[in-house]
Amino acid sequence: MIYINGNIENNRVEAEHFIDFIGKEVSLQGVIYKIREMSGFAFVLLQTKRHMVQCVWSEEFSLFPLSDLVCNMSVLLTAVVISEERSSTGCELRMKSIKKLSAPVEQTPIVINNRQVGVSLDILLQYRPITLRNERERAIFKIQEGLCSGFRKFFGENNFTEIHTPKIVYSGAEGGANIFKLDYFGKEAYLAQSPQFYKQMMVGVFERVFEIAPVFRAEKHHTARHINEYTSVDFEVGFIENYTEIMTYETKMLIETLDFLQAHYAYELNLLKVKIPTVNQIPAVDFEDAKCMLEKTYKRVSTDMEDFEPEEEKLLCDLIKKETGSEFVFVTRYKSSKRPFYAMETPGNSNVTESFDLLFRGLEITTGGQRIHDYDEQVEKMKNRGMNVDLFKSYLMAHQYGLPPHGGLGLGLERFTARLLDLPNVRQATLFPRDTERLEP
Amino acid sequence: MIYINGNIENNRVEAEHFIDFIGKEVSLQGVIYKIREMSGFAFVLLQTKRHMVQCVWSEEFSLFPLSDLVCNMSVLLTAVVISEERSSTGCELRMKSIKKLSAPVEQTPIVINNRQVGVSLDILLQYRPITLRNERERAIFKIQEGLCSGFRKFFGENNFTEIHTPKIVYSGAEGGANIFKLDYFGKEAYLAQSPQFYKQMMVGVFERVFEIAPVFRAEKHHTARHINEYTSVDFEVGFIENYTEIMTYETKMLIETLDFLQAHYAYELNLLKVKIPTVNQIPAVDFEDAKCMLEKTYKRVSTDMEDFEPEEEKLLCDLIKKETGSEFVFVTRYKSSKRPFYAMETPGNSNVTESFDLLFRGLEITTGGQRIHDYDEQVEKMKNRGMNVDLFKSYLMAHQYGLPPHGGLGLGLERFTARLLDLPNVRQATLFPRDTERLEP
Repeated sequence: MIYINGNIENNRVEAEHFIDFIGKEVSLQGVIYKIREMSGFAFVLLQTKRHMVQCVWSEEFSLFPLSDLVCNMSVLLTAVVISEERSSTGCELRMKSIKKLSAPVEQTPIVINNRQVGVSLDILLQYRPITLRNERERAIFKIQEGLCSGFRKFFGENNFTEIHTPKIVYSGAEGGANIFKLDYFGKEAYLAQSPQFYKQMMVGVFERVFEIAPVFRAEKHHTARHINEYTSVDFEVGFIENYTEIMTYETKMLIETLDFLQAHYAYELNLLKVKIPTVNQIPAVDFEDAKCMLEKTYKRVSTDMEDFEPEEEKLLCDLIKKETGSEFVFVTRYKSSKRPFYAMETPGNSNVTESFDLLFRGLEITTGGQRIHDYDEQVEKMKNRGMNVDLFKSYLMAHQYGLPPHGGLGLGLERFTARLLDLPNVRQATLFPRDTERLEP
Repeated sequence: MIYINGNIENNRVEAEHFIDFIGKEVSLQGVIYKIREMSGFAFVLLQTKRHMVQCVWSEEFSLFPLSDLVCNMSVLLTAVVISEERSSTGCELRMKSIKKLSAPVEQTPIVINNRQVGVSLDILLQYRPITLRNERERAIFKIQEGLCSGFRKFFGENNFTEIHTPKIVYSGAEGGANIFKLDYFGKEAYLAQSPQFYKQMMVGVFERVFEIAPVFRAEKHHTARHINEYTSVDFEVGFIENYTEIMTYETKMLIETLDFLQAHYAYELNLLKVKIPTVNQIPAVDFEDAKCMLEKTYKRVSTDMEDFEPEEEKLLCDLIKKETGSEFVFVTRYKSSKRPFYAMETPGNSNVTESFDLLFRGLEITTGGQRIHDYDEQVEKMKNRGMNVDLFKSYLMAHQYGLPPHGGLGLGLERFTARLLDLPNVRQATLFPRDTERLEP
């Protein structure tokens, strides 16, 4: 029997700390990213967890031949730290010796260590395990991590409880055809389109809940903004007075998360030259008014008076930005016909709902609103829609035995990341996207 | 057009801050949990986000009749704060007036506001939306949240990157029959049994990665320790020297997470009288040695020399606790035949692997180990197992183009929660469990 303690320290130095070792020898680990051979010396980029470390190999001070190094080789390096202002870490490393830890069988069929991986999106995704090694490609997902951390910080500070709800479900939240079916021990089951039912039930338990987890949509759309599995940032808040409170929560969440990103992910934001939008407040415009504004400004006749066409979302964002400076805009009070059965209707006008979308840089990234909390009201609306209330018995249990007034939203993490980084296709902000054509890798 | 700012302040006071309002009037929101009527006055428990607030209704100072209150009613309460040592919040609230926000249609068919919900596990789960409202039931999941927050804190401080990997996959990580199939736009797809392939690929990108997300196992076992969808805490670390490093990481993660829990979740830990294990170091015993120890101590002949029977896991934990005081024990070097194709074999002995399980209070909660990073070695092992290497092309891309030595683990969140809280059935630590019989709610 041996004992394992929790001491994970070793003598390796992280790139962030080189600055404390100027003139000294350090050990570090990383992957050879790029080798630029000059006469008698070479620049070698070493990729570490987060940073790209600028190293120099030279006949003068390196104890091994340059030919020992190949790209994508994992090494343990011993080097002397030299101050170098032009490097992003403020240092340059004079390579002394290396220990080879693993090596590739062959070089990548695609050049991955240039500024951009110069291939089509299809090839980029097909070779995801290696194209993600590109410095800029991986920075996208470091920023995505930052978004999640920022959201969770907001949730923690505002007394939300994190929940884990099932993804194999007995019934679809939104219903309809856009749902994946599976055989569950002889029963028909579905993949959750959203944690909607569960987060509403949990309002009755924790008052405020959130979940950041995968959701599944069997939509056949193959566009730049659709994927069939995505990460949904969901929250639900009890004891609200109206749906604008939910927009207030989202505004605060966005302000604080973007601040958090700038404080902790400056390295990646600079690398990708991200323009972080300034947010103090977000304009909100009624759906009907938005339609009128579009008609008036662009002289365009809409074919769909109940929803926006994708082009209209772009035009509306342009217009709002011009008029208010804001890159975000809430559109409120969508038609009841376009919203699910749990959406609260506007008092006195059952044709519209106490709901909103948030558009950002031309794309809808959030859907939210107030939900029906009254049992009788909910059952009546379901019956009016011809739904079989019995199928929703366990969901309605929450309403039946008392549920505070509440509302919430879902935000698509990949869509938000894509618009924030000005990536034209949501797949570029998805680690391993799933679409109608793509199931691998 | 209106503007939404991020100001979510209102005049309501959270239970944690009552102590600053002694003698003053406060507004607060909550759900009537329990009413205990006395003569001329009544004790009323109000459930808030996290705390149970002790209130007193009295003819003397309450401006509404007691009959206005029913359990499971959501109210906005105005009350005067009185110091009261015997209350968990240090205060008692003299109810002045209430505003009814929503009310149940009827009272719950099960008594949910006693110390325990006194029903069978089946009924407890069937009525989950309301049984979770029980103070002790919900505390289980508040502690589970604390575990996740503690893990994430550890990951953040140790430079891990959070990833979101797909749950609809083209191939099972472990293979075998225990996998859910679904129709994916005419192709056969599966639900991920673990993020194994993806986290290994991502070691080549971020060096250290983690994910806390659902995984799916179509196992037909219907036992107290099996559920078919669970939350897996996964991490993977590059540049390790051997698999004991992964155990070191886990030990540190557990020490820090249990400390975090005690610092931030004392309220729930006290409520459930949780005995937090003390961990400084964790004993590790070779699988073969463990089998011998069991044979010697308990004079028991094992029928399965390649794995533990559940009873053996319990006996081993008892034995280790008696001998070392530790409630955790690592078992190392499991047989190759019992480990997946990516498990690294022990140099010089291909019958055993550089792997481990972590047992805690009689139950396996973690499986981990070092993985094969060398492409040729991996391909050879797959061929020896009769696997079709072509099906794993995109996974093997990571190895082919260079992958650092690495290893990692998966920890079952619900199992860990259950053992930590001494809950006999893992379903009790699962918000909405999925098992062979249960798909709803």
